[in-house]
Amino acid sequence: MKKIIKPLAGASLLLPWAIQANGADKPNIIFFLVDDYGWLDSEVAYGEEVYPNNHRMHTPNMKRLSEKGVIMTNAYACPISTPTRTSLMSGMHAAHEKINMFTAPEINTPTDFTGGTRGFFTDASSRENDDIFARPEWNYNGISPEPGVPHTQYMTPMVKQLRDNGYYTIHIGKAHWASMGTPGVSPYNMGFIVNVAGNMAGMPRSYYAEDNFGNQPDKWTYSAINDLEEYYGSDKNLTQAITDKALKAMDYPIEKGEPFYLYMSHFGVHTPIHPEPQYYQKYLDAGQEEKTAMYSSMVESVDESLGQIMDYLDKKGVADNTIIVFYSDNGGHSLNDAKNSVPHTFNEPLREGKGSVYEGGVRVPMMVYWPGKTAAGMRINTPVTPPDFYPSICEMAGITDPKTVQELDGKSFVKLVTDGSQLAKKAVDEGKIKNQKEANAFVIPQSVSGIDPDRTVISHMPHQWRIEDQDDVDFLSAVRKGDWKLVYRMHDGKLELYNLRKDLSERNDVAAKNPKIVKELAKELGTTLRKWGAPMPVVKATGKLVPMPDEL
Amino acid sequence: MKKIIKPLAGASLLLPWAIQANGADKPNIIFFLVDDYGWLDSEVAYGEEVYPNNHRMHTPNMKRLSEKGVIMTNAYACPISTPTRTSLMSGMHAAHEKINMFTAPEINTPTDFTGGTRGFFTDASSRENDDIFARPEWNYNGISPEPGVPHTQYMTPMVKQLRDNGYYTIHIGKAHWASMGTPGVSPYNMGFIVNVAGNMAGMPRSYYAEDNFGNQPDKWTYSAINDLEEYYGSDKNLTQAITDKALKAMDYPIEKGEPFYLYMSHFGVHTPIHPEPQYYQKYLDAGQEEKTAMYSSMVESVDESLGQIMDYLDKKGVADNTIIVFYSDNGGHSLNDAKNSVPHTFNEPLREGKGSVYEGGVRVPMMVYWPGKTAAGMRINTPVTPPDFYPSICEMAGITDPKTVQELDGKSFVKLVTDGSQLAKKAVDEGKIKNQKEANAFVIPQSVSGIDPDRTVISHMPHQWRIEDQDDVDFLSAVRKGDWKLVYRMHDGKLELYNLRKDLSERNDVAAKNPKIVKELAKELGTTLRKWGAPMPVVKATGKLVPMPDEL
Repeated sequence: MKKIIKPLAGASLLLPWAIQANGADKPNIIFFLVDDYGWLDSEVAYGEEVYPNNHRMHTPNMKRLSEKGVIMTNAYACPISTPTRTSLMSGMHAAHEKINMFTAPEINTPTDFTGGTRGFFTDASSRENDDIFARPEWNYNGISPEPGVPHTQYMTPMVKQLRDNGYYTIHIGKAHWASMGTPGVSPYNMGFIVNVAGNMAGMPRSYYAEDNFGNQPDKWTYSAINDLEEYYGSDKNLTQAITDKALKAMDYPIEKGEPFYLYMSHFGVHTPIHPEPQYYQKYLDAGQEEKTAMYSSMVESVDESLGQIMDYLDKKGVADNTIIVFYSDNGGHSLNDAKNSVPHTFNEPLREGKGSVYEGGVRVPMMVYWPGKTAAGMRINTPVTPPDFYPSICEMAGITDPKTVQELDGKSFVKLVTDGSQLAKKAVDEGKIKNQKEANAFVIPQSVSGIDPDRTVISHMPHQWRIEDQDDVDFLSAVRKGDWKLVYRMHDGKLELYNLRKDLSERNDVAAKNPKIVKELAKELGTTLRKWGAPMPVVKATGKLVPMPDEL
Repeated sequence: MKKIIKPLAGASLLLPWAIQANGADKPNIIFFLVDDYGWLDSEVAYGEEVYPNNHRMHTPNMKRLSEKGVIMTNAYACPISTPTRTSLMSGMHAAHEKINMFTAPEINTPTDFTGGTRGFFTDASSRENDDIFARPEWNYNGISPEPGVPHTQYMTPMVKQLRDNGYYTIHIGKAHWASMGTPGVSPYNMGFIVNVAGNMAGMPRSYYAEDNFGNQPDKWTYSAINDLEEYYGSDKNLTQAITDKALKAMDYPIEKGEPFYLYMSHFGVHTPIHPEPQYYQKYLDAGQEEKTAMYSSMVESVDESLGQIMDYLDKKGVADNTIIVFYSDNGGHSLNDAKNSVPHTFNEPLREGKGSVYEGGVRVPMMVYWPGKTAAGMRINTPVTPPDFYPSICEMAGITDPKTVQELDGKSFVKLVTDGSQLAKKAVDEGKIKNQKEANAFVIPQSVSGIDPDRTVISHMPHQWRIEDQDDVDFLSAVRKGDWKLVYRMHDGKLELYNLRKDLSERNDVAAKNPKIVKELAKELGTTLRKWGAPMPVVKATGKLVPMPDEL
């Protein structure tokens, strides 16, 4: 529309509806989502200090974005991927939509390893049942844009709101909201106009075009990646290939002057850890152990993708009208030795990683850049959670009261990142914030942001995630409020309490010293989980649900 | 745009550019392409009489379209699929773009069985070389929208013209223009905004959702169909599933009032012959042999798809502004006993079928319906060929002089089907056309249509198509002009001449009686093939190209 309106700009003939209808007043929105990307895997230091682990990877483009936009220092995701992704689309808390575990490619196939008889892993037969707990009831077919699909959460997709309001909606990369054989598996049914590669697959079989990204006779699995046939046999990696596709897909709405929403959903940096040849050697040369170097090279490839997109927006002249939201779907993977020789250490100083409700599993990188609205480089410590994105992105698109069949659980963070960051900037200008620590501690009052800075953050993992038992991962639930975090270890029937301000690494359990706080938080967690009807494991011995934390 | 313009209709505020920009004056175009669909496989009788074979299948929706639009009684395609499809996209004659054979999924893999060392068939090792001829030089990687790709024809895609002129372009179904690893494999690179299922695959592995359309571990091949995961395990057949996707994809441009181009490219009714349960029994009950009943059920499923699309256009209120072009990519398959117990008879009275330059291989069903412009139910006998579609569809979209890197070989048939059909209607109204035979004989002069009714039609097959030798298929070239058709049998070094008016079945070779006509047509064929640099086989004994028909 821009091109057409130009000759008439300022003329009285310019009708308000003409702009409105074509959305020239609406910003473009890019949601740049990285998979399994940890809080420490970046030059951007989200913490109140720069930790040693912040020096591992070169991420110049994330740095560049952080200097333009705002850094969310307390952004949370779910412990694993599907729940975050479905929550982003439904606006419901994962425990509310009853999806705290990942969906299998196959329909009707619970993936939690607590008594299942089917599965999609080739080693499914070797699965161990948990001795104590049986599987909770949950929506193992994912979310659904249509009612009546068994074991799904019916909901009005966030992206459909955008599409219905004039946005050109592009899906690139990983979807993983639902199992095949259900409508939720297809981005086209979620409101996307374009889809490249999105379906039930939660990870790629291969990052390499020389492997056809997994599309090879005799090797094919449900993790083979669709829609990238033009790159087969070339030296493009998956991250580069889908970035290419994203750039091309933006051309059409840019040419037409239509606002667009790009869901740039990288498979990287999920396993398999396949090094990117252009970067790998550099990290070896820098002395990283082999597996870390492999992973670092994948991170830098994703960083390059971000840079290419930002460059493209500049080149096309739309950067000033394009919001970029940067986020990860869960904490960095740290369970095994895929990334370094010592398991459970990759996210230090955070405890644990993907799968866990400890901070390493749920605290994730996040940035928001809204040209002209967010104050450059500011740090915002109010917690943000997956359900917040639905109302936030709708608000960015001018949809203030989205109509949904489901109840939304989040709050828009638009005022937080706009007015809130301007407030922070004022504090910087006035000398009230002088360093990173003070910036991280700066509180944006609810009167400005609409969000209580001490709001409750619930992380819920009522499943056994993987075949091997993981005490710090399986059957946990947690609630954070302000500095305090309560962790409910269901297997042990135990409540732990940590003060995150003093003890970010959650090593010093102070539950015994603070019974009142434990009781309050346990009540808050239990009340909310009951209200949502959150999945809870079943105690095999009694056939009853595991008690809520306030029922112990 | 419609919804927005409505309250202002008639008001002086209605600016011309507002309509122009949004294309409300441009018709939607649906290209309904059926695969391997023969001239006789329909209730619509394209010939000058109704043949027994026209009674085999129920095609009520094709009948419905034929009564609204015009019937092209001399529509030609290439003998096989890829050449027709690439020609539709490039506007070049298949022999000119040097693609007279189908492209393999794999790059750099000629599919003609004359000395090749690689291939994608599992039985490639059992391939027989031809004793006499070696493979011609040809573009076995297909067409390419980018220059410099080895063994491709570089061209500006037809669909890109539409997209660049405001059309919302939707690809549903089979593409098959190029091999994987080249840009031509992706509909997104051809100008399509939406792609469902299109890539290098030329046929489905399975028509059944219960087989996941071929996407199953241990069974996967390059013929597995992408992008239909939501139907896996259901009872939707492939034809129904992609029709569903097409209906959904039209919603967006219809809602926005943007003109759209829907390339509805069915895999049906290509092999494998997988019966559609809802129709199969009916044909058995009608006494068809089992294989014919299977095929008939597939045809009726495609007919149902056409009906669903027409109904949807009605329901959405856009039928009056939507052109429908109906076409097949080659003649019906008749080589083996896949469809009935007697090979080579399925297209009677036409000789032979898919693969051959005899009429059964190249004469195909075609209809065009342009509401308000084509005269209902008229029959047009001027020949139409694949390269004609590029300028025709561009003209329909208001693009009168498309800029291309390639030389276009066709003529727009827009005036032929509009002014030409109105002329035929006048003749009907005046009693000059009283029956089907007279309608088929009615000549539309070049002064009206812009196309010589006796134009030249060249069909070229310089390859061995399949593993088994087929004398009436392999290494043939033909030219038709008016009633006369010359067939060059390269293996024999022989020229045949048929009078199609008297001998539609090409059984009575009259070459010996008409040496002058043979000479003229041989010169025309030879001259044109030389001009295009058409692929010709190599004589193994001499290492030289097979002589042109006028060099014998």
